[in-house]
Amino acid sequence: MTSERAYVFLERLTKAVGPRLTGSPQASAAVELTRAMMIEAGFETWLEPVTVQHWVRGEETAEIVAPRGTESQFLAITALGGSVPTPRGGITADVVEADSFDALAGLARKIKDRIVFFNHPMDRAFLDTFRAYGEAAQFRTRGASEAAKYGAAAVLVRSATSRTDRNPHAGMVQYAPSVSRIPAAAVATADADALSRLLQRGDRVSVQLNLGCRTLADVESSNVIGQVRGTERPDEIILLGGHLDSWDLAVGAHDDGSGCVQAIEALRLIKSFGPTLKRTVRVVLFMNEEFGATGGRDYAADDRRIKERHLAAIESDRGGFLPIGFGISGSPDQFARLKILEDLLRPSGIQWVRAGGGGADIGPLGARGAILMSFIPNAQTYFDVHHSGLDTLSSVHPRELELGAIVMAIAAYVAAQEGI
Amino acid sequence: MTSERAYVFLERLTKAVGPRLTGSPQASAAVELTRAMMIEAGFETWLEPVTVQHWVRGEETAEIVAPRGTESQFLAITALGGSVPTPRGGITADVVEADSFDALAGLARKIKDRIVFFNHPMDRAFLDTFRAYGEAAQFRTRGASEAAKYGAAAVLVRSATSRTDRNPHAGMVQYAPSVSRIPAAAVATADADALSRLLQRGDRVSVQLNLGCRTLADVESSNVIGQVRGTERPDEIILLGGHLDSWDLAVGAHDDGSGCVQAIEALRLIKSFGPTLKRTVRVVLFMNEEFGATGGRDYAADDRRIKERHLAAIESDRGGFLPIGFGISGSPDQFARLKILEDLLRPSGIQWVRAGGGGADIGPLGARGAILMSFIPNAQTYFDVHHSGLDTLSSVHPRELELGAIVMAIAAYVAAQEGI
Repeated sequence: MTSERAYVFLERLTKAVGPRLTGSPQASAAVELTRAMMIEAGFETWLEPVTVQHWVRGEETAEIVAPRGTESQFLAITALGGSVPTPRGGITADVVEADSFDALAGLARKIKDRIVFFNHPMDRAFLDTFRAYGEAAQFRTRGASEAAKYGAAAVLVRSATSRTDRNPHAGMVQYAPSVSRIPAAAVATADADALSRLLQRGDRVSVQLNLGCRTLADVESSNVIGQVRGTERPDEIILLGGHLDSWDLAVGAHDDGSGCVQAIEALRLIKSFGPTLKRTVRVVLFMNEEFGATGGRDYAADDRRIKERHLAAIESDRGGFLPIGFGISGSPDQFARLKILEDLLRPSGIQWVRAGGGGADIGPLGARGAILMSFIPNAQTYFDVHHSGLDTLSSVHPRELELGAIVMAIAAYVAAQEGI
Repeated sequence: MTSERAYVFLERLTKAVGPRLTGSPQASAAVELTRAMMIEAGFETWLEPVTVQHWVRGEETAEIVAPRGTESQFLAITALGGSVPTPRGGITADVVEADSFDALAGLARKIKDRIVFFNHPMDRAFLDTFRAYGEAAQFRTRGASEAAKYGAAAVLVRSATSRTDRNPHAGMVQYAPSVSRIPAAAVATADADALSRLLQRGDRVSVQLNLGCRTLADVESSNVIGQVRGTERPDEIILLGGHLDSWDLAVGAHDDGSGCVQAIEALRLIKSFGPTLKRTVRVVLFMNEEFGATGGRDYAADDRRIKERHLAAIESDRGGFLPIGFGISGSPDQFARLKILEDLLRPSGIQWVRAGGGGADIGPLGARGAILMSFIPNAQTYFDVHHSGLDTLSSVHPRELELGAIVMAIAAYVAAQEGI
């Protein structure tokens, strides 16, 4: 707590590299830098290959061309990750608003050649912001293909945040097979509200949308791995992980720079603590969580795994905020045994250990018998910054970040010494 | 959670009034404004008198005059509340550093006519930031009189925050009776570090200190009270409180604007929820917590209390952050009964209800038989802003603030209907 080293790592990562979009030169630089950090920390390190998509952002504008002179002529938008571009000259089309897929179906005959505007706000009433996010984010992931089924020309999707501001929030669009791919962009919540007010007046609202994004050839990238080998059962592994790629509107300080540096710092703490580890503790910084979590998939499928046994995998990918709890998968017997973590971690601020663990990157290890542990920090403010230009270093607090690294270190150390 | 009204109240209070230092015109304006808010919310309202100290800040500078040309020639300082001014022309004296009262005693013969610099950092190693604060803040409260016993001319006290920055943190100095009163100022942590580095080089370091603060005649001020009367036992009261006065370097958004608006919002929620209250729920915005908590003392001692019985008093004065728990005073039997709040509040995010409750303002009600309940939010970042120019509206999150109001509302409602 005194040295707050996790933040020092995060500062170095975010300042030296910048945003780390999958497939980008910055993502490659982040691979080199984090490996160097792990070498400096005295870990055994290596890279494992991951083939990733390389999508690049281009110009992106959305202008309300009819009616003229509104409060929101230039909409604050950002292309969704993986979106196809608009044709040369952009798309100019009337806007149709829907707040659900049912509403979309009800408008079916009005959608052809239009821009569908999905305007489903994140529900502030849920204490669990991830639940509200999940509800809202489906329009970002599935909206383009659902609208394309009715012949829409493009989609604008309300950003998934409960704040009202002019920061669009990125995220991946998932095109369904055998449905035509249409351009998709997120619109900032303040602009979504303004657009909606205009539509509710009954005006015909026409928007010109230009997206210059495109998908380039796949890129060979890497998962970055560092470990301290166990002396008694080196092939039994406790994994600490986060994902190294980020969105490109900011440096991904919370998502998931925090998880990466917490994993590194946790192992550094374990190593500096001194006692020999019985089992191996391994840090994996997964590549490409944001474009399909192929890093997690490829890690689990790599031939190196054949002779290894992953006892537990701990993922931090919910922001670098105040630690609250751990969610843990496994059988009732395993959970009962791991419930002791609650007493061990309470002095460091953890409030509970509950059944139910997983994560996009560690998920595939579950099928290989690993206990999956989700680090759960306070997420009340996470979606303010998530995938947006606000996910900057200054939004992370050194003290709260370090607390997360400490509880991850304790959990991993106990698992390494005592088994599961 | 959808309307986030506590934040709307806080925005109104902070924007309309500004800082609310005890005795200031702004504190009077805050009395009028918060009473108006409570009238608008449909509460029965009144004021109760509190006589308060009226201390005003003047010019405040501290310049390192020897050696010249240092990294920190002009120290970022602020007079401690209640400090006497420096004489005309200021005080120019050599600086002696001490990190404890024991160290001060060891330097006894070097202190006469010097400026004592108390440089005790807040200990980041404590999970409980209030504990680290308590250790550090004693030099602010007691340092001037301890140094004066050895003939010091003035004191500079390292600001009580674990961050390193150039924001001095105010707070009250408590002069001991029969010791001469010497000027006292807080110095920002970055400047304290620079000053300490200079002293550790072994240089003679001389500072010119100018404090133009002074204490004016006492002012008649008020506690602001609003209530919804119970229909079955109107004289049995559940109190919700915070303190209305703040420090003057910012608007006291966390300390304790948050507690005030949470109390108002909690009663507004209870009232809008509908059912008739069996017992009275009362909001008290205490005046003058920061200069001796005389508002709490006078409230408890007021003749109006004779016919009343305060069953419980809930205080929010630890910032408007994520709710974590409640500390509750009372006998083991009473605590066992109130422990049910844990289950009732868990769906709203409260993690625990523990024995041990109190608060500067509600404390005097404990002697009158009230159960004291401390609302405990996440305080990992509280002392970053506490008493400093950083305690601004933008440092409060509408969602976390509202969650606090909601759990206070539930606790008060249950107590009003079920008794203690």
